[in-house]
Amino acid sequence: MQNLKLYNSLSRKKEAFKPITEGRVGMYVCGPTVYGDAHLGHARPGITFDVVYRYLQHLGYKTRYVRNITDVGHLVNDADEGEDKIAKKARLDQLEPMEVVAYYTRSYHRDMALLNTLPPSIEPTATGHIIEQIQMIEKILANGYAYEVDGNVYFDVVKYNKDHAYGKLSGRNIEDMMSNTRELDGQSEKRNAVDFALWKKASPEHIMRWPSPWSEGFPGWHLECSAMSTKYLGKRFDIHGGGMDLVFPHHEAEIAQSCASDGHDAVNYWMHNNMITIHGQKMGKSLGNFITLSEFFSGEHESLDQAYNPMTIRFFILQAHYRSTVDFSNEALQAAEKGMNKLMTAIDTLEGITTSNESSLNVEDYKQKFYDAINDDFNSPILIAHIFDVVKQINSIAAGNGSLNEKSKNDLMKLMNDFCFDILGLKKIESETEDGLSDEIMEVVLGLRKQAKENKDWITADFIRDELAKLNITVKDSKDGASWTKK
Amino acid sequence: MQNLKLYNSLSRKKEAFKPITEGRVGMYVCGPTVYGDAHLGHARPGITFDVVYRYLQHLGYKTRYVRNITDVGHLVNDADEGEDKIAKKARLDQLEPMEVVAYYTRSYHRDMALLNTLPPSIEPTATGHIIEQIQMIEKILANGYAYEVDGNVYFDVVKYNKDHAYGKLSGRNIEDMMSNTRELDGQSEKRNAVDFALWKKASPEHIMRWPSPWSEGFPGWHLECSAMSTKYLGKRFDIHGGGMDLVFPHHEAEIAQSCASDGHDAVNYWMHNNMITIHGQKMGKSLGNFITLSEFFSGEHESLDQAYNPMTIRFFILQAHYRSTVDFSNEALQAAEKGMNKLMTAIDTLEGITTSNESSLNVEDYKQKFYDAINDDFNSPILIAHIFDVVKQINSIAAGNGSLNEKSKNDLMKLMNDFCFDILGLKKIESETEDGLSDEIMEVVLGLRKQAKENKDWITADFIRDELAKLNITVKDSKDGASWTKK
Repeated sequence: MQNLKLYNSLSRKKEAFKPITEGRVGMYVCGPTVYGDAHLGHARPGITFDVVYRYLQHLGYKTRYVRNITDVGHLVNDADEGEDKIAKKARLDQLEPMEVVAYYTRSYHRDMALLNTLPPSIEPTATGHIIEQIQMIEKILANGYAYEVDGNVYFDVVKYNKDHAYGKLSGRNIEDMMSNTRELDGQSEKRNAVDFALWKKASPEHIMRWPSPWSEGFPGWHLECSAMSTKYLGKRFDIHGGGMDLVFPHHEAEIAQSCASDGHDAVNYWMHNNMITIHGQKMGKSLGNFITLSEFFSGEHESLDQAYNPMTIRFFILQAHYRSTVDFSNEALQAAEKGMNKLMTAIDTLEGITTSNESSLNVEDYKQKFYDAINDDFNSPILIAHIFDVVKQINSIAAGNGSLNEKSKNDLMKLMNDFCFDILGLKKIESETEDGLSDEIMEVVLGLRKQAKENKDWITADFIRDELAKLNITVKDSKDGASWTKK
Repeated sequence: MQNLKLYNSLSRKKEAFKPITEGRVGMYVCGPTVYGDAHLGHARPGITFDVVYRYLQHLGYKTRYVRNITDVGHLVNDADEGEDKIAKKARLDQLEPMEVVAYYTRSYHRDMALLNTLPPSIEPTATGHIIEQIQMIEKILANGYAYEVDGNVYFDVVKYNKDHAYGKLSGRNIEDMMSNTRELDGQSEKRNAVDFALWKKASPEHIMRWPSPWSEGFPGWHLECSAMSTKYLGKRFDIHGGGMDLVFPHHEAEIAQSCASDGHDAVNYWMHNNMITIHGQKMGKSLGNFITLSEFFSGEHESLDQAYNPMTIRFFILQAHYRSTVDFSNEALQAAEKGMNKLMTAIDTLEGITTSNESSLNVEDYKQKFYDAINDDFNSPILIAHIFDVVKQINSIAAGNGSLNEKSKNDLMKLMNDFCFDILGLKKIESETEDGLSDEIMEVVLGLRKQAKENKDWITADFIRDELAKLNITVKDSKDGASWTKK
């Protein structure tokens, strides 16, 4: 078994990964609030935890990956004035909130599929688990860590902090939080400004509402993840992931809810991906500086020089370690595009290499390097650097400087396939390299070109070259025959 | 406004369609139970109500289309012995039931997208609406039409039938039902054999369970549709659709639940599609004689002679009126494939026709015929017959027998586009006709072929013909140049 180490945000160090149940892993990741198109910021957790999921499965773990859909909108704050984001979008578009939810859930799934992320095992929705959230509130109330005021239920952070450590994930201190939290209007019914809502009574105009022992209302925005992770992964599970921006208050509140309900932490390893910035600032819908994924794929946004293939976006994100920030720029994406193309070309080249008796490349060395990199808290940039060492070697061997024997070639093809496709989740860009019919027709064209050259029919040969150039197709001759690429 | 008539299964006659709210339509359609891959039988309601949805939108109605996902499995009967279909599948596959649900929901969405059906506005799940179902049971109990026995709640059909007409949709008579219903073990706690469960107490090993005022348990299998249609479309809405096999008991029970809860019918128009048969027998998962849609798309099933494009399946289904049965056979599908190809070719041909001053074809006549056909309870076979009259005319004109002026050509192109693509939801088969790169490279090949012919270079011309023949590509010469098709 490989020796996987994860950086645990809770202990603030890399720890050897050991699942609760041998051979099985439970992983929960915070998913999107579906009231707008997914942007580049959503691609990062999508891809980060997709690689985690893929690698755990590569290691043979039977993995249950749960990622929620938040279909009841978070309030801006706990005060009644905060408007539900989804209900607001629905009101603006004159739709029922669940129409908004259905539309953007489909849009999210489409984008995540284009980025070649595997779908999670279960994708539970907040509105589909109101009963489970009410049950959790009842337990927290029974344990004395929550109180009801006028149909609202609040988590008593101060009382909880006496028995447990509130702030242990984010490293915040409750005294600092108390003094830094402004008392907003409408929050005055809370015992302490740091308390957060578990259940809110719906105002008369609020559409999304359910009956509860306290009022017709809706759950607070931290509760769904605690209730749904417990339901599908149990009271203790292995990995909880999400963006760093969720550490406080969301994940801190999740820890408090689980401890207050069940008396112990639910999560063994907390993993957080860093943010994508644009000119150094976090990209986000609420900040208004985001570029949606479909804009990246089409190139239709004033900040974009061109359209970017989803695989370019994926490669761009994987070039940085998930715990580092990534700054968006056209230059960086174009560099990623070049790198991605170079890698895919090398994998094709490798397939075409004629083997000899000797091998100038030691596959086992690279294999060890690849595994060492990914086992070191999913260090994808180091892994990609090693992969590019192999690319260099492949190109060298194809140029005649070095050789591969059959076993080395097969081992190397499997290694590249495992890491580039199965684990990093890259895939060849279809329109350029996998269009079967174009390939077949090009074979006819290349056959005609060969004939023309053999017959010294330069008019035809030139015609073919010029026409293909118009289509951005270049033909390369080698000892194994002609091949073609499209720019 | 067009004069749409619908066959209402409740009145057993065609009625003029008049929505409850002017300009808006609410439509609910029973969706799949997600415990297996969708088969041909699922394609029929998917496509039938997709055409209804498309046409209502074409007429300018703002339409809310709700189709549920049944993610808590129906029991075979009301007795405790019946095993939940989804839980059973989960147990067999060693998965959590919601993993089964997620997997087959994705598979269903994929197949429906391939069939070019539009996604519904809202796709609610049964497990996501347990609270609404409990609330509905409480109302039915309060109105005296249900009773509780040992944690189970049953609908009192006999009592209901004294005040309302149970059986009015299916045309069944309660006395006959009473005498025809065998008393099975475990049903003895019901007052009458015809009563059906609204809530079932979960046995200890039953995984899918929720708290309720009566027991930890789960809702009966008719309830979700009543609760969710009311939630998203109101207590009265326009259209309820589904397969004819759902008329009894499912839709009969829905009517009873709505009346018992709200005192009146919820649905104005009940629409039912007929079944797809295989050798005259209904195709169904529980019958074990089904062919899945992905098997049709790949051709990998012993009963299939070849793979069938999703558009062939769609065209095949639309060739019959939705209230007629359709019998599956390879011959019928192959005929549909030919018809579909002929139609798409004619649409391409129409685009290429050179206009003249005169028009030998009266577009308004056809337009009226097209609308008359679809307004007559969505009579797609008659509509398709009229479309093929137009196909014949187009081919005639392209061959020089007749002409189109510019206005007629544009009107006809719009008419064909509206009916074939927007309303019937057909689309061109991409790999064969819309592959941009193949088209471009083929232009190069056709250019070379032209050159060779002009130079009387028969070797090259023959080479091109033979190589293209190997790829099943045929080239056709006409006065407007050469064109190609792939078989």
